[in-house]
Amino acid sequence: MTTTFYPGDAYPVVLGRLQDTFSDWLQQRRPSKILLLCDANTRRDCLSGFLAATGLPANTPVVEIPAGETYKHIQTCTSIWEQMLKAQLDRHALVINLGGGVIGDMGGFCAATWKRGVDFVQVPTTLLSMTDAAIGGKLGIDFQKVKNTIGVFQNPAAVFVDPVFLNTLPERELRSGFAEVIKHALIGAPELWEMIRDFTPEQLSACPQETWLNMLSQSIAVKVRIVTEDPHEKGIRMLLNYGHTIGHALESYFLETENPLTHGEAIAIGMLTESWVQHQRRAEQVPDAWIRLMLRIFPHRNIPLDIVPDIWQTMQQDKKNKAGKVRMTVPGNMELDMEVLEPSQEEVRDSLLFYNNL
Amino acid sequence: MTTTFYPGDAYPVVLGRLQDTFSDWLQQRRPSKILLLCDANTRRDCLSGFLAATGLPANTPVVEIPAGETYKHIQTCTSIWEQMLKAQLDRHALVINLGGGVIGDMGGFCAATWKRGVDFVQVPTTLLSMTDAAIGGKLGIDFQKVKNTIGVFQNPAAVFVDPVFLNTLPERELRSGFAEVIKHALIGAPELWEMIRDFTPEQLSACPQETWLNMLSQSIAVKVRIVTEDPHEKGIRMLLNYGHTIGHALESYFLETENPLTHGEAIAIGMLTESWVQHQRRAEQVPDAWIRLMLRIFPHRNIPLDIVPDIWQTMQQDKKNKAGKVRMTVPGNMELDMEVLEPSQEEVRDSLLFYNNL
Repeated sequence: MTTTFYPGDAYPVVLGRLQDTFSDWLQQRRPSKILLLCDANTRRDCLSGFLAATGLPANTPVVEIPAGETYKHIQTCTSIWEQMLKAQLDRHALVINLGGGVIGDMGGFCAATWKRGVDFVQVPTTLLSMTDAAIGGKLGIDFQKVKNTIGVFQNPAAVFVDPVFLNTLPERELRSGFAEVIKHALIGAPELWEMIRDFTPEQLSACPQETWLNMLSQSIAVKVRIVTEDPHEKGIRMLLNYGHTIGHALESYFLETENPLTHGEAIAIGMLTESWVQHQRRAEQVPDAWIRLMLRIFPHRNIPLDIVPDIWQTMQQDKKNKAGKVRMTVPGNMELDMEVLEPSQEEVRDSLLFYNNL
Repeated sequence: MTTTFYPGDAYPVVLGRLQDTFSDWLQQRRPSKILLLCDANTRRDCLSGFLAATGLPANTPVVEIPAGETYKHIQTCTSIWEQMLKAQLDRHALVINLGGGVIGDMGGFCAATWKRGVDFVQVPTTLLSMTDAAIGGKLGIDFQKVKNTIGVFQNPAAVFVDPVFLNTLPERELRSGFAEVIKHALIGAPELWEMIRDFTPEQLSACPQETWLNMLSQSIAVKVRIVTEDPHEKGIRMLLNYGHTIGHALESYFLETENPLTHGEAIAIGMLTESWVQHQRRAEQVPDAWIRLMLRIFPHRNIPLDIVPDIWQTMQQDKKNKAGKVRMTVPGNMELDMEVLEPSQEEVRDSLLFYNNL
């Protein structure tokens, strides 16, 4: 079964098995050259399967970069651009980004800025990138530890989502990506929410391909609806940043410690704490089912409150901010309904206290 | 007198005195913050005049970078981004690029990639950037000495062209920019050509503001017509690259020598040599009036033929190339008519021999 979405009518997001979809597309495209970007993990776990499924030759040029968010910076871009220069990539070439969010964001950025833009294809290999990062044309890198500070909006030529790669993921990675599935459910997919609200980590690890296709289809549909409506994040697209104001700041903070958080772990804490601020202001409680699901999937972790000034500093750089005010975006009362909050540093601290006490 | 062009109906290119145009525009815009980018030269020669004419406060934050093409690289971008981070520039800020092509290209690139894009305004201060670089949304930097290899297409919020800054230019710079005026005349403005064909360096240096407004208006009109028709350089826009295949390669080569060529000097040689290849294939002569004008404006210089393998290597990276073939674009038989040539290395060498023998 193949499902194809067209965000903004601009490019296909093809959900299904790669062997059924990729080579037909490529034959119509006829790029002058192909360059495949991967990291050490996807080279080991995904590359041969990808080449076999797509029929690309085994000697397709591959650029490998070190794995991990800590390498998502301008120096790594420079080394990718050097490889592009060596490969004499012209404007009619195609870059294939085989990997998770880091590969997609950074490889996409390097392609979008190479000779002012060559085509690139996203082939997400993590749950996080399948459901979120690979779709919507947001590309970028971190700068001085501030996430995604340098980047552009540029649509890929296509996105191919094949859940087969989920089998290669460590369990912690799989759970991490599930945070974005939960987010999509909470902001705009009540049916998906009903489907996942009682999920356990065990179910997640043993999830059959068919269930993945079903969940991914509903989750991707939310993302596609939003980026179609608001490609450049002037309005409703900011709702996709639910959990990310506090979440990103926590992720950045712990990135350099001995005990980093995954993106999903950080965003789960972000969703709970940001929702706490919203509900607190309304004198309401964060729904119990939300808390229970997130605590089941993401191990609880105490956040030392003395880091609040640090993360508040990071939040000053959040891209959603306006006129010096920190902003966070949380789901409103309806489906795809956004509320924008401007929290104080005290509210952020209190929300983390709430989380710590769960 | 103010003339306003709208390339692609997208943004205004305002030709006239800054005091008549800029502050009205800015008042409607109301950015959250303003950051002014300049280099050592424009800070000294243009900044106070710009602030006085626009009414911007004297304490407007200024980022100064070293002057010159040799600094148009990713390290300078990093230092600009650092200043943007320090200034806590949010997405609603405005970057003003006060300077020549390097400032416009690099400042525009840094703005277009800052938090995936903040608005920027081009205020060109050289003839070259007034007539060419500031218009059309091509942004970028050099990479490993290959010109404009990293970049994006992104339109500015506006371009303000005031020939008053031409008074601050050294004569060699003024002549350099004149190469692009000649180019626009040859590819698409017969009336402009009649106006400039007998120009002398003395006339150029003593040119009154009114004549500049007239010439700039005709020259900008050509550029605007072309970028409106073909914003992403899929077709006719490549004609603006007339003289640039060989010209860029020569410019890059001599950039690191003790005797660099200005952009205009390089492009003038490029136009003569590329036209020679075209005319040679047709068994025709390059028009005498072209040769005479260029030799009058640009001092003749012998190009050692042993550098041909070097510049041929650089030409391999030209953005117009397709499937490994070097391409150059020269004017065809009509106005705005393009011919695409795929020269051999021998033709390039012979064309330089032709130039050397002039």
